[in-house]
Amino acid sequence: MARIRLGVLGSTRGTDLQAVIDAIKEGKLDAEIALVASNKEDAYILTRARVHDLPALFVESRGKEREDFDREVMKALEEKGVELVLLIGYLRLLSPAFVERYRNKVMNIHPSLLPAFGGGMDRNVHKDALDYGVKVTGCTLHFVDEGADSGPIILQRAVDVDENETVDSLKEKVQHAEGQLIVKGIKLFAEGRLKVEGRKVLIQPEKG
Amino acid sequence: MARIRLGVLGSTRGTDLQAVIDAIKEGKLDAEIALVASNKEDAYILTRARVHDLPALFVESRGKEREDFDREVMKALEEKGVELVLLIGYLRLLSPAFVERYRNKVMNIHPSLLPAFGGGMDRNVHKDALDYGVKVTGCTLHFVDEGADSGPIILQRAVDVDENETVDSLKEKVQHAEGQLIVKGIKLFAEGRLKVEGRKVLIQPEKG
Repeated sequence: MARIRLGVLGSTRGTDLQAVIDAIKEGKLDAEIALVASNKEDAYILTRARVHDLPALFVESRGKEREDFDREVMKALEEKGVELVLLIGYLRLLSPAFVERYRNKVMNIHPSLLPAFGGGMDRNVHKDALDYGVKVTGCTLHFVDEGADSGPIILQRAVDVDENETVDSLKEKVQHAEGQLIVKGIKLFAEGRLKVEGRKVLIQPEKG
Repeated sequence: MARIRLGVLGSTRGTDLQAVIDAIKEGKLDAEIALVASNKEDAYILTRARVHDLPALFVESRGKEREDFDREVMKALEEKGVELVLLIGYLRLLSPAFVERYRNKVMNIHPSLLPAFGGGMDRNVHKDALDYGVKVTGCTLHFVDEGADSGPIILQRAVDVDENETVDSLKEKVQHAEGQLIVKGIKLFAEGRLKVEGRKVLIQPEKG
């Protein structure tokens, strides 16, 4: 089986990308990061990519229609032969054309147990969860559809909120879980074990 | 320390009440169930109470204003010296007067990780969760305020959704967690360790 080729889109630090890089280096994940692209020229995710000798691409979004920007990104993904796209801290909604082209081939990680604390782009999800007073939160890996945080859920993991929890301490714990979920999700996808039926993602047994 | 006196309101089977009864019998919980009341004459929770020699009271709700019905229930709770009220499958909203009288002294158990899948009285929460395709759900013990499922969260516990999960299998797993949460919540309350600050319930360290 050929290594699955990953494309990563991000606008921020890309902390979860490190989990993917590490898993590949440690031989726990048979994948190749074919492209890391960002709409922010100074996003640390691009630096992170370069540090690890991964193709890093800045795509200017200012002054462009969403569709035009997305077309550029899609072109870059196609040229690199990307089979699975990961959104890691990507602060943009995908255009319908992008969603259609990569239906059930784009994964997003969200730092809460959806449907709780979903639906916003610029929200501080951990602050919202702490303000609400939850005792359990977590993270969600889902396929991306036309909505915000609304696509079929691939994996979720719960994280306990401790007494004296802060936004920073919670973020760190949830990010650790995020990294694990992403790596697991890529693996399941590469093995052809994710089957989407309506809103449900069925995880098929390991092929033997 | 005197045993805490519990009042239980329920409209259905009262499966979670069994967890409380068992915990008391096994010496794991120092509490006394002073009253089990229901607005449904044939609700199994009343039978369950009688089987265990607990005071069981049916309060007719038909033809009564909510306030009048609640006043009858409150009178019965007062007569029994109830210090903490548990809602276990209680399919009624409490009147403002009830909420005010027992502020932070009424606990409700909800079969999801609030705020997800909350806010409805007659919904099948487990079916909603499965239809949404969640991979993690759970239950929430919270104090009751004026809204539906909106009060400060005392405890939550996550439950994994397995492949081939059904509404019935999920309900059983979540109910097991519910029983554990209720018993733990009563204990913390009786020990004076629950401190409500706005939406947050702080759990104080054990005394002594």
